[in-house]
Formats: sequence, C-alpha cells, structure tokens
Amino acid sequence: MARAGRKGRGGGRAGAAERRGAAVIEQMPWRLPKNLDKPTEPLNEEGVQAIHEGAMRILEEIGIEILNTEALEIFREAGATINGTNVRVGRDWLMEMVGKAPGRWTMTPRNPDHELVMGDGHILFGNVSSPPSYWTLETGRKMTGTREMCKDFIKLSQYFNCIHFCGGYPVEPQDIHASIRHLDVLYDKLTLTDKVVHTYSLGKERVEDAMEMVRIAGGLTDEEFEAKPRMYTNINSTSPLKHDEPMLDGWMRLARRNQGLVVTPFTLAGAMAPVTMSGAVAQSLAEGLIAVALAQYIRPGAACAIGTFTSNVDMKSGAPAFGTPEYIRATQMTGQLARFYDLPMRSSGVCAANVPDGQAIWETSNSLWAAVQSGTNMVYHAAGWLEGGLIASPEKFIMDCEILQQIQRYMEPEIFATTPDDIALEAIAEVGGQGHFFGLQHTQDRYETAFYQPFLSDWRNFEAWDAAGAVWTAERAHHLYKEIVASFEAPHMEDSIREELEAFVARRKEEGGAPTDY
Amino acid sequence: MARAGRKGRGGGRAGAAERRGAAVIEQMPWRLPKNLDKPTEPLNEEGVQAIHEGAMRILEEIGIEILNTEALEIFREAGATINGTNVRVGRDWLMEMVGKAPGRWTMTPRNPDHELVMGDGHILFGNVSSPPSYWTLETGRKMTGTREMCKDFIKLSQYFNCIHFCGGYPVEPQDIHASIRHLDVLYDKLTLTDKVVHTYSLGKERVEDAMEMVRIAGGLTDEEFEAKPRMYTNINSTSPLKHDEPMLDGWMRLARRNQGLVVTPFTLAGAMAPVTMSGAVAQSLAEGLIAVALAQYIRPGAACAIGTFTSNVDMKSGAPAFGTPEYIRATQMTGQLARFYDLPMRSSGVCAANVPDGQAIWETSNSLWAAVQSGTNMVYHAAGWLEGGLIASPEKFIMDCEILQQIQRYMEPEIFATTPDDIALEAIAEVGGQGHFFGLQHTQDRYETAFYQPFLSDWRNFEAWDAAGAVWTAERAHHLYKEIVASFEAPHMEDSIREELEAFVARRKEEGGAPTDY
Repeated sequence: MARAGRKGRGGGRAGAAERRGAAVIEQMPWRLPKNLDKPTEPLNEEGVQAIHEGAMRILEEIGIEILNTEALEIFREAGATINGTNVRVGRDWLMEMVGKAPGRWTMTPRNPDHELVMGDGHILFGNVSSPPSYWTLETGRKMTGTREMCKDFIKLSQYFNCIHFCGGYPVEPQDIHASIRHLDVLYDKLTLTDKVVHTYSLGKERVEDAMEMVRIAGGLTDEEFEAKPRMYTNINSTSPLKHDEPMLDGWMRLARRNQGLVVTPFTLAGAMAPVTMSGAVAQSLAEGLIAVALAQYIRPGAACAIGTFTSNVDMKSGAPAFGTPEYIRATQMTGQLARFYDLPMRSSGVCAANVPDGQAIWETSNSLWAAVQSGTNMVYHAAGWLEGGLIASPEKFIMDCEILQQIQRYMEPEIFATTPDDIALEAIAEVGGQGHFFGLQHTQDRYETAFYQPFLSDWRNFEAWDAAGAVWTAERAHHLYKEIVASFEAPHMEDSIREELEAFVARRKEEGGAPTDY
Repeated sequence: MARAGRKGRGGGRAGAAERRGAAVIEQMPWRLPKNLDKPTEPLNEEGVQAIHEGAMRILEEIGIEILNTEALEIFREAGATINGTNVRVGRDWLMEMVGKAPGRWTMTPRNPDHELVMGDGHILFGNVSSPPSYWTLETGRKMTGTREMCKDFIKLSQYFNCIHFCGGYPVEPQDIHASIRHLDVLYDKLTLTDKVVHTYSLGKERVEDAMEMVRIAGGLTDEEFEAKPRMYTNINSTSPLKHDEPMLDGWMRLARRNQGLVVTPFTLAGAMAPVTMSGAVAQSLAEGLIAVALAQYIRPGAACAIGTFTSNVDMKSGAPAFGTPEYIRATQMTGQLARFYDLPMRSSGVCAANVPDGQAIWETSNSLWAAVQSGTNMVYHAAGWLEGGLIASPEKFIMDCEILQQIQRYMEPEIFATTPDDIALEAIAEVGGQGHFFGLQHTQDRYETAFYQPFLSDWRNFEAWDAAGAVWTAERAHHLYKEIVASFEAPHMEDSIREELEAFVARRKEEGGAPTDY
C-alpha cells in the first residue's frame, strides 16, 4: 500500500495536485505528459498537400450540408456559396479563419491544479464515453447502463491520475429519463471529480445546463467562467459531409462563451467515407475544418481542436474495425495535417473486442501507440472501451490505466538521459567482469525511482503466480476496480456550492429538463 | 477457408514463395516487410556520442573478459592489451574493424524463395527460442518441454508466412538427451521447415553438426555453403563484460565459414548492468562490438548484426521485467547506435506474463512497437514467448502472429497512398451528403484488398460473438493451433537429401553426439 503523500513510482516530479482518496494502489502522480517523440509521418510533403488539396476541393466544389439555420446564416454573411443547405467556402477564407485558431489553449476545472494544456506537445487521456452498455467479469453479460455503473466509472476517472479529463457519459445511464439524464450525470461528475468535464451538444437546454453547472461548481461569476475555457464539447459530423442542427448549436454556444471546441468526424472508410484511407481523412478534415472556421468567425481565437476518427469496416460483414493497421496510418496522417493547420489534435483508444482479452489489448495498444506516434494531444476513450464503443467495462478501464501509465512513464526524459552519471563508467569499472550491480551505491541511490512500477502487471514467476491463485489480468483488474470504488473518497467541495448545484438540478428537473428529440 | 494460390488479404503483392500446407486460415503471403517509418530517436547527437564514448571507454579502460584462448590469441595478434583474460582494445582499431562489417547481408535457406535480407530497412520475425517449459490452455500447467511440443512450434513457424526464420529451440526438448538434442531438433527443423535456421554456439560439435546438416539439407557442396550465409548463430555475452569460451568458439567457426553472426548481450539494468538505461546500453554495446571486431579481424566483411536485450528488474523483488517503458527506450537507443555503427540490428518480442492474457499482450505490443520504432531488422522471440522466456506457448504463438501480420500490413505503403484515386474526390462528390460508399464502384473495385483481414480477431458484435460461444482470444488461438498442427504438410524435400540427413544424424548419435558440459 502506498504511503500518503509519497512520490509515485516511475520517477519524475510530483504533480501539482496530490491524489485524494484511498491508496488502493501506488500510482503515478498527476502530470500533463509531454510527448517528446518526433511524430511518425507516413506522408511526404506532396502527400500532405494532396490531402489538404482534397479537403479544400471538397469544401470549394462539393460542399457540406449545414442543417443548422443559424449557422447557415453565418456562413451566408461570411460570403459562402449557399445552395439550399449545401455550403461551399473558398480556401482563402477557410484558411484565414483556421489561422485564427490558437495552437495551444487551456481548460481549467474547479480544481485549478487539474488545469489542462491542449497542444504544446502534451498528450492527455480521458475515460470511455457514450457506450449504451456495460460488461463486467462479475456477470459476463452485456447489461444496460445505469447511474450506479456510470458513477463507478466517474470514480475511477477521478481516482486515476493518468485520466486527465472526464468526457461524456462513461456509460449511458438509461435508468435516468433522457430529459434529465444530463443533470444527474453532470451533478455526479462535478461532485465526484474535480477534473475537466464535457457537454454533449444535444440541444440548447443540455448545453446551457452544463455550462451553468460548471460555472456553479467552480464558484465562478459568468465573467470568470468566460475568461478562459473551463470545459468543452466534442461534436461529430454526420458523415458524409453533413453537420446536424444540435451539434452546431452547441458548438456555437460554447464558442460564444469561450469554451473548448473539439470536432471529430467519425468516418468508417468504405461506409461513410471513401474506402481509401487518405480519401477518408481528406473528407473528415473538410468536415472538421468548416466547423473550426465557423467557430473562428463567431469568436476569433476560439479554442478549437480537430480529430479524425477514421477506421475501416470488415468488408465481408460491414462490421466496424478498430485499432487496425489502417486506423493507425489514418491517425498518423491526421496528425500531419493537424500540424499543417496548427490545431491541437484528438484521437482515441479503441478496439472491436467484446471482452478485455488479448485482442482487446492489441487493438487498444495499436490505437494508443498511434496516438503517441501521431502527436495526438487529447486521447478520448483511453480507458474502458470495448465492442467498438458499445460497451464500457471497469476491468478494461483498469487495464487501460496500466497501459496509460506506461505511456506516461515512456514520456519521461530521465529514462534516456546520458549524463556521465547515467553512462556510469565508474559503476561499470567497479563491477568489472565479476559480480552484479544490485549492491552498488550507484544502484542503491537510484533504485526507488529508476524503473516504472506497474500496479496491475504481475511480474512474479509462474510458480509464485500460480501459488497465488493463477489470476489472469482481467480478474486482477476486477478486484482492483472493486477496491478502488469501495474506498473512493470524493474531492472536497464547499457545502454552499454543492447546495447550489443541487438546487439547480432540482429546479431544472421541475421545469422538465431538456426535450428528448435528440 | 482460403482458396489455393489466392493472393492473401491485406493487399500487396504475392510473395515469391506460395504457402504450402493446409489452408486452415487465410493469411498474408510471404514477404520481407520493409519498415518505412523514420525511427523514433530519443537521443540527440550528443546523446549518441555519449553512449558511443561510454562504450569506447569501457573497451579502452575497463576491458572485456575473453575466456576463449583462441580468441585471446587473436586479440593479442591484433595488438590488444591483454591482462590475464582481460582484453582492452583501442577505439581506432575497433572502429576500423566494425567499419568492415556490411550494413546489409542475406541468408539463404534450402528454399531460396525464403532468402532473408538483413538490414536495408527490413524487419524480420522469428519464433520464440530456448524456453525450458511449455504452457497450453489445454492443461493450464507449466510442463517440461518435449520433442513433440518442439515439433509443433516448428510446424507453426513454417506454417506462418509472417515468421521469417526458425531460431533456437522453440522449446527445449528435455526428453532428448542433451548430447544429441541438437541433432534431432535440427533434423526436425530442416525437414519440417525450409526457412533459415540457427545453431546454438554451445561447443564445436554442435556448431559443426549444424553447419553440416544445413549444407546437406540445401544439397550444397562445402564451397556452395560458404559462398554466402545460409544460417546464423546468436551469441550472448555473460554480462557484465565477459564472453565465454563456447560462444566465441561458435562465433569464430561461423565467421570462418561465412555464416550469419548475431551478438546480443542480455543485460538487466540494475542486475548485470548499470541501473541507468544508457549505461546498460553502453555496456551492452561494448560487449557486442568487441565480438563484431573479432569476426571482422578473422574475416573482413563477415555478416554481423548487433542487438541489445536490455530490460530492467523489479527493484522490489529482483524479478526481470519485459516490454516496459525502459525496455522500449533502451531498444530505441540501441537502434540509434546500430545505425551509428551501420550494423543490422536485432531486438525481441517479450513479456513477463505467465499466460497469454492482457498483460502478455501489452508487454508484447510494447516490445514489438519498440522493434518497429527502433528500426530493428531481426525480431527474436516474436511469437510464442511467455514468463520472461521461460515458457513457450502455442496460444501465445498464434496471438503473436496476428499482431505480426498487422505490423506487416502497417508497413505497406498502399495504406497511405495519396494519388487522385486515393483522395477519391469523384467518389466523395458522387455520394455527397447522402447515402454511403458501400455500393460505389470506387469501393467495389477495392474492397477485397483495401483492408487488413485478421485471422484471429473477432470483429462480430457482442451478441453474435456471444451466440457463437463467447470465446476469448486465447481459446480461439488454441483451436487454431490444433487445426494448423493437425493438417500441417511439410515442405518438399528430395528423398536422397532426407536419407543423407538421417544417415548423418544416425552416425553422429553412434559417435556419442556432443559433450554435455555446456
């Protein structure tokens, strides 16, 4: 068990925020990992230009369907060519708008120690978002999401320092009526965590409620709330080439109030995008960039990030596939284009597997390494995702956090330092061709922080592991999940603020919550 | 089931060699994948120089124990400073020798279609080598290796096109007496596969027997055998800073006969090397480079490759750890230095897990991505390894081959092609903001080869997967392993050659095989 306040294993500096809650495991401290690797770039300069040119020609010649009347009027005012709901924009205007977007911005939650930096080489991880269903080793069945399940994931998201933001519903709590679901879950998120939260852009009531609740939770005036991003929304286009009414409505509401804006077209190549990966990426970028331009027109300098979520389908069955070689390359290509446009980038941790087995981990590892290689700044669904996003699993969440910690540790430059102390000629001379380094002063001085210490990997030999019950990874994860949730302690919140939040939720429920047409 | 002669899924050109044996799965064709990614380079120029300088000073000031008398005499002749068994060499001589080593060489097995290119950007995969024990899902127990188990792995190594070479014993067959073990296993390897094989450098009899058997299997004269590398050995130093008698004996025997030479110090940082990764790498390089220099002095231009196998220990228990963040960085650093010395590089696919579960896959994925990122040319233990190399598992072998195929597919430049056909503006225009791309001619023309098709991943949704028995990855792998082995067909071998091999084995057994002091 960890000693309170102890610096986490895996070396490095203690984060600004100490971990709260019980110390079931000894984990790495909070930090914003910085990706030091040069991105992997499959495209040469001509390739980047070809995809850019494709995206521009889609916007100029084919156009995007804009189903939001207000947005349509803004595009008209900005000089776009409108034909019904089809909007075409010139590359000069588009690039002028995109050029106003900052390459780096921050999001500050109610605990300012958990402020996030988007861009600037950081890679940040968030929980799985939006699965309707739940799977746990305890039942082995696919179950409908409930508020209790959802709260468990929120607790895990707060507990793990390697989870930087608390995105959408980690599982959709279908035991709460859709009209008030956002109120209860936002309340749970804002009281059980002190990390950055998100709003779905599913109608003005939900968006306005979320912004108001984040403002209350932070103890902020309206002016303070708008002084810098405190939260964000993530919108998906309806590929191919369409933005729906509510998504753009939320997008514009957050833009006006200076909050974070992430646009991530979800395109399965061969289904809602071309079967060729560069074509799918070009289409996704066109869909994403027009949203960025809209935000910049409304509020120059609005905090935007772009992602593609481009994977492929199984051409035999049409089933979506995730964490594939094609997915990795699409993510890397998107990274090159995100840098071309100087926009922070989002990607995801994904798999098609139905249970947290070997397939789940190679698909997830592929996608997480793709995030690293592409220079991704914000990794959605980084913990807990199964079945192509249809299932959230607490065991998978725990397993993913182990992988995320390893990636965080991988980012620490101490590992590959080459000072004379690191090259260690004296130590090598001292041991010579005899003996070992265990007892050496050079070793003793460093052994507590020299190496990453996993919380879930079992490094015992077979015999010791077998004698201890021969427990496979998923089952070990299950026990940890239970322990963490059972001993969870919520971060501090002033009573007055909690009461204000409760009163707000009660009032909005009385008013009927939000329409359920989305 | 695959149609005979059908081009494998996953696009690309059919390999030179058609797959033989039954078509249990539809797999990718034989190919020598070329790694197109720029390596990930954690070190800057000063870092590379610091490690190089460290390795040079180890060789110049501390020296390496050379326990082989013949090698010692050669070093003496070459002008090294000898003190007992301690050998120190100057950097000028060392770098002159290393400079004679080719950056690219080939190995040609009895089937020339399975010729390997070492270097030149290729990444080649081999089976797990040398575990004493075996684990299968069928028993769930750790079992002592036998010849039958060993033959199963040899069959899998031949069956899978993504396995390019057949390294050491995939599991040590302890039911064969150690004096004749090499004869039986080489016989099995040379008759059940037609891929490049290896000899352990464990005494002159084993080494000479292996070279003779490879010569016979290839139907070669002595002159033809020596005309180019047909096989290889891999030696490990006895870290810290020591080369044992038999390893160097085999090394020199193969050098004299123009065969492949791979040196891979196995150093656990904090145990047999400094606790700091760059120090461990510098020490490993010193140990490796002196062997390369020896080979080049004996035979200028000898076919050498270098690797480090530098991982860390659990500082709480001393247990070795594999596939860790530190392991990844050490592998990447080694890649930078291998390029500095212009030598082909070896690394490994590794894990500490005891069973083919989630941990096994994240550790293995980490090590395989490290191989890709480091520009590794030869990946040892790429399929089947568990428990830090103490266990070979057929289920893990099958799972690893799925990962290896995905890495091979990842290397295919078609994925990120950006021709006008790939950007697919016409297709995007044709679909516009309505409908989907499934039925499009652009999709139909490409759907058979557009995406990688896994043989082990199950992409069905939860309900379909559940209805089919809810089978986890390791169990699916088990069934495939059984089917592949049951329907295995050995590659063709002339009767006369087989008889000559049999006669050789029989004669050498009569003579008592090899001494068992190693």
